[in-house]
Amino acid sequence: MTDDDTVTPHSVAGDLDYEKLLARFGADELTDDQRARFPDHPLVRRGLFYAGRGVSDFLAADTQSIVTGVGPSGPMHLGHAMVFYFAKRLQDDLGARVYIPISDDEKYWFKDQTPTETGDYLRENLRDLLAVGFDPELTRIVVDTRDADVVYPLATAFAKNVTGSTLESVYGAPENIGQAFYPAVQTAHLLLPQLVHGDHETLVPIAVDQDPHVRVSRDVAAKARYPVGKPGALLMQFLPSLAGPGKMSSSEGVSIRLTDDPDTVREKVRKHAYTGGRASVEAHREQGGVPEEDVPFQYLSAFFEPDDEELARIECEYRAGELLSGELKELAADRIVDFLADHQSRRDALVDVDAELAPFRLTDAERERARGAVGFGY
Amino acid sequence: MTDDDTVTPHSVAGDLDYEKLLARFGADELTDDQRARFPDHPLVRRGLFYAGRGVSDFLAADTQSIVTGVGPSGPMHLGHAMVFYFAKRLQDDLGARVYIPISDDEKYWFKDQTPTETGDYLRENLRDLLAVGFDPELTRIVVDTRDADVVYPLATAFAKNVTGSTLESVYGAPENIGQAFYPAVQTAHLLLPQLVHGDHETLVPIAVDQDPHVRVSRDVAAKARYPVGKPGALLMQFLPSLAGPGKMSSSEGVSIRLTDDPDTVREKVRKHAYTGGRASVEAHREQGGVPEEDVPFQYLSAFFEPDDEELARIECEYRAGELLSGELKELAADRIVDFLADHQSRRDALVDVDAELAPFRLTDAERERARGAVGFGY
Repeated sequence: MTDDDTVTPHSVAGDLDYEKLLARFGADELTDDQRARFPDHPLVRRGLFYAGRGVSDFLAADTQSIVTGVGPSGPMHLGHAMVFYFAKRLQDDLGARVYIPISDDEKYWFKDQTPTETGDYLRENLRDLLAVGFDPELTRIVVDTRDADVVYPLATAFAKNVTGSTLESVYGAPENIGQAFYPAVQTAHLLLPQLVHGDHETLVPIAVDQDPHVRVSRDVAAKARYPVGKPGALLMQFLPSLAGPGKMSSSEGVSIRLTDDPDTVREKVRKHAYTGGRASVEAHREQGGVPEEDVPFQYLSAFFEPDDEELARIECEYRAGELLSGELKELAADRIVDFLADHQSRRDALVDVDAELAPFRLTDAERERARGAVGFGY
Repeated sequence: MTDDDTVTPHSVAGDLDYEKLLARFGADELTDDQRARFPDHPLVRRGLFYAGRGVSDFLAADTQSIVTGVGPSGPMHLGHAMVFYFAKRLQDDLGARVYIPISDDEKYWFKDQTPTETGDYLRENLRDLLAVGFDPELTRIVVDTRDADVVYPLATAFAKNVTGSTLESVYGAPENIGQAFYPAVQTAHLLLPQLVHGDHETLVPIAVDQDPHVRVSRDVAAKARYPVGKPGALLMQFLPSLAGPGKMSSSEGVSIRLTDDPDTVREKVRKHAYTGGRASVEAHREQGGVPEEDVPFQYLSAFFEPDDEELARIECEYRAGELLSGELKELAADRIVDFLADHQSRRDALVDVDAELAPFRLTDAERERARGAVGFGY
């Protein structure tokens, strides 16, 4: 990674050295002890979540919240699902609250899309979120413009604590004044669980390039004299997109959507997946494949093959040239298809999204508490 | 007025040449015809409102709205009251709607005050607004953080149409990202009547230094492809503060509050009012006073002595040295005390501000229409 490489919340370029990135951001690599204390999950066990801030405090706490959001700029794909299902695991195993902010305002400001398009994506994204199966008692889904009665007073409070120069140094010059304001909204997202339920440990599982958002919110939490502690972060390496190294969390390029049917999934994997195989079957049999470079293998490792022995067998056979790239692709596609079949059956069972969403929305009392906590309860 | 003089929404300096200001801002002086078509009011007849944008279209329209707001950064004083009572006159005589945005967010971002202080000022300001006696059928009072469910989606829409460079050129570099966002909120204020009731003529009576806000909103209205026309502006010269030339619309310096009792009013006028009188009674009798420089006279002229003949008599006697500065002060104080007695009796009759405010708040249907009009109705 050269000094010219750029990592901000809006652009990722260059071949990333994840350790240097931590040094630059000032975050800490996860320790073995921390890994062991997380609920068992491939994303942590196999290191895609590799670093963080305040992780030990989170793990030691009685009351825990996860904040993980999505911006409605397109259909949700596997990368989104992995993080939300991980959050659900933490909810199931730790009893953690999960707060899911949906930044329709941000997507409108940063993307070339109309409010109508944003609304259409939002409805589809909500379906996927509801299909994950979160516990409505412990989960809140917040849409920035729809829940503006609470989001905006909080953002108003925090906006005073983010200077123009912080904005420019962390995010670069804004194209429009919505982009300028967004760090205040993001801070509202990250501090919301504490404003509703009181000071407690919060963890934000997030791609490493989004870390600046967390740092700004941590700074505000430290400065602003509200009844909140700094939110922690659990930082994730980039899962490559299907077609190879790049950024999974963007909707660009070929990616598997949560609504793709089995044939579409198999075709996308067959046609687009970047493999670690050799130029010919003969060369592959002779030299073996390179799992580290093989995207289907990386998907299995990150999420879709939780069984360590099975994964080791696949890795071994691929490296030995016994398993061909085409066979590995089919294997990964099978697992993804199985995962999506479950997801889609829950998704299809949803009749009225607004009605299903209702128990996941902030209650009136929760809204009042949050506004009151920043002084805008009048 | 030199080129070094500064007129932005946040600072006014230098001796103002109001004509040059119009040339610089690109607004038009009111014509005699326009003056004649306004409901008769001293603020227009005697020229404190001296210029505007789109005024003829407003006067010719069947459906008319006035937008005039206040920022809760202290108690309201005479300068505020004059504009609100003027708006009420337009409502009474033209059937105009009056929209009153209250920018608690702005005051929090621009002033050194806490949300709690902001809330306290807000409650007092609301009392004064309700005491004006607007028609609840035709009047809407909107508090930015409290009515964020409609203000924020609108501001979100408009924020995309204000670039960072427009922000800096019109307002200067923002100290915090709330200040950066505020033009979007202001635009929401100025376009709100049209978003609720459909495209119609809107007039914003405003001190001339606030004109940049109107221009930004006009640009957005022209660019953003929403069902709105450009809001018009009715531009006001600065009424001097009691102690002399300066800016009346700020709460700084000595000013008469709408809650001042008669003794306080008389004492403030006696002690602080800047006069156009001479150094001694003898000199005054001999040379006469200068009404143009006399603040009590200017208050009478602007608002508190609506009778032209009576005002002419006062002016004549003062210029001739027959009326002493002390006597002119008493005369102005009498009128102000009378005005405040009426205002305060209505103010004191308010029991529960929240209950009294209810019929002035946007209805659910109005909120839905406004959000829908910018595409954020989902």
